[in-house]
Formats: sequence, structure tokens, C-alpha cells
Amino acid sequence: MNAARLDAQMALLTEACRLKSVHRATTLCDGSRPENSAEHSWHLALYALVLGEHAPDGVDTSRVITMLLLHDLVEIDAGDTPIYAEADRAAIANAEQAAADRIFGLLPADQAQGLRALWDEFEAGQSADARFAKALDRFQPPNQNLASDGISWREHGATLDKVEDRVGKPIMRGAPALWNWIAPKIRDWFTRNG
Amino acid sequence: MNAARLDAQMALLTEACRLKSVHRATTLCDGSRPENSAEHSWHLALYALVLGEHAPDGVDTSRVITMLLLHDLVEIDAGDTPIYAEADRAAIANAEQAAADRIFGLLPADQAQGLRALWDEFEAGQSADARFAKALDRFQPPNQNLASDGISWREHGATLDKVEDRVGKPIMRGAPALWNWIAPKIRDWFTRNG
Repeated sequence: MNAARLDAQMALLTEACRLKSVHRATTLCDGSRPENSAEHSWHLALYALVLGEHAPDGVDTSRVITMLLLHDLVEIDAGDTPIYAEADRAAIANAEQAAADRIFGLLPADQAQGLRALWDEFEAGQSADARFAKALDRFQPPNQNLASDGISWREHGATLDKVEDRVGKPIMRGAPALWNWIAPKIRDWFTRNG
Repeated sequence: MNAARLDAQMALLTEACRLKSVHRATTLCDGSRPENSAEHSWHLALYALVLGEHAPDGVDTSRVITMLLLHDLVEIDAGDTPIYAEADRAAIANAEQAAADRIFGLLPADQAQGLRALWDEFEAGQSADARFAKALDRFQPPNQNLASDGISWREHGATLDKVEDRVGKPIMRGAPALWNWIAPKIRDWFTRNG
């Protein structure tokens, strides 16, 4: 064992603990409190594990799980940006790049490079794996909203048009089977709740 | 897409949301609140991803990550049992088996069987993958205790003997390199805090 190498890896893992204190706009399914980004990341990895068979051909579920475990680490520095917020997306992207430099940079260089490349691939959203990962990241919140009777949708003034644009499009792009399943439920909720 | 199949998978994933409300004895690294079992599971999967190179030969990190994503789901029904608690371990094992029947049973039968087998393998703790997964499950809490200056050790009256027995032995069994790294830090903390 190389102790310096393990020291560096444990620095990243201890820093990662802070993701448990980053709050998201979405609540838990029972509406009791906002979800944090660490438990959200766990839930998404479980989504990938259970729903991998609905991914388009060629998607590597194991790589998607790794991406999802890492995808929100930058929020330790940059915070979470709600899906429906009006925000300066370029400024957020810059803050997240700086966060990725700092946080992945805690690891030994070879390992930092490999995991950073996977995070970059997720952010770019072009590969089939990244498209499926991003689809799951958009698919989980409306499920929690449907479970909590729309707490976060109400709080953030979401409309059906906005949900179809910001949630529907990326799900349709990376996991059309999942959008076909949830779209009627979402439309029904907005019809009932005007 | 088979809609009934996806309905069953989503029933499991919505039920899984409740793991975010199961509290553990260990606090976050900053001591601000108890950790929950969902964010703990995410953190452990990240431990496996980053520390996989320190596993004994033959360990499949990707299988270990899957085990760790699933390993605490039974706590939705059975709750978390603190490492240092005096508890009826046979009664807990029975409650966890019943919980596994119910929770994995929400899935389509073929998928339930595969994931349940992986959970059973983790519980049995005999395979190299299960031993490494269990070692990580014991390795993360002392790191958070060292970060928080021993909040949970103090609250639960942990002694160095108990830590070496309940934490040291399973880590030594599944990931000796990690025990060699942390053991001096734990001994030093108990020496300073008597």
C-alpha cells in the first residue's frame, strides 16, 4: 500500500461528505423535507440499476452508475440549481468547472484524470451513456413530485409547458421508454391542478 | 416497453425513497446531524469506486458497488442497528429477511431474484466481494468519527477494544490495507480521549 495515495483518496472521500448538506428544490416522496444531493445520487444510481433494461441499445449501465455517483460532487462548491430557476447557465458552468478542478484534483493524478473524464462526458451529454444518465437525473424529480402531490412544482411555479421542455426533452432524448411511461401521469396531474 | 414491468420497478424505486428517512448512529463529518442510510449508501459506493484498487485480488468493484447500493434497503422496515448497540442479532436478522422478501418482492420476479441473491451474498459475508463490501461499511463510520472528533463514539460509549472488535475485525478480513491505514489514527484518538 502506498500511504500517500490512500491519504489523497481519503481527502476526496471526506470532502464528499459535504454533498449531504447540499439541498435540492425537490422534496422527498413524502414531502417531509428537501432532498439533498448525496441521497439523490444514491437514488439515481439505484434507478440506473433497476431501469437499465429500458436504456437504448449500447448503454453500459455500470458506467452510467459510476457517472451518477460522481455527477453532483461539484455542487459541494457550486450548489444545486433548480431545474425551473431562471439562472445564468454560463456562470454556473464556469463555477462547476472550477469545482471539478478542485475536487477531482484531491485524488492521485491518474485517478483524477479518469474520473474527471467521466464527469466531463456526463456534462457534455453527447454519448449514449451520458444521455441515459441525464435522462434519469430528469426522470427522478417528477416521480417525487407525483408522490408528494407536486410540492416542488407548486413552490417553483412549474407549468406543463416548462416540465415538457426542461424534463421531457432530456428524458425523451436519453430514455424514450421512460418518458412514454411518465408523460401521461404528468399531464394528468397538471390537468387536475390547473 | 412492458408497462406492468415498469410499474413494478417504479414501485420499488418509490418505496426506496423512504431510506432517506432512516437515521444512523453516525453523524455527518461536520457533526451537524445524524447520517441517513440513503446518503450513507451513496458514500459507500463512492468509497468502493475510489478505493477499489486496495481490495484483495479477485474483487469485482462493480459488483461491490451494486451490493452497497442495495445493502441497506431492508432498513426501510427493520431500521438501522448501531454497531455498538447491545441488540438481539437473531431477531434483527429475521426482521431483515422479512423486509427483503417484501421490498425485493416489489420487482418483477426475475429481477427480484437476481438482486435478492446479491443482497443474500452481502449478508452472508463469505465471498471476497461481500467481505470487501462489509469492510467498507465498517471503514466509513470511523472516518466520520475522526472527522467529527468522535461525536458518535462518545454518545455510544465506544471503547478502543469495542472498535477493534466490531470495526477492526471485519475491515481486516475484507480490506487489510484500509485497516492498516486507519488503525493508528483510531488508537491515537482513544489514547488522547481516554
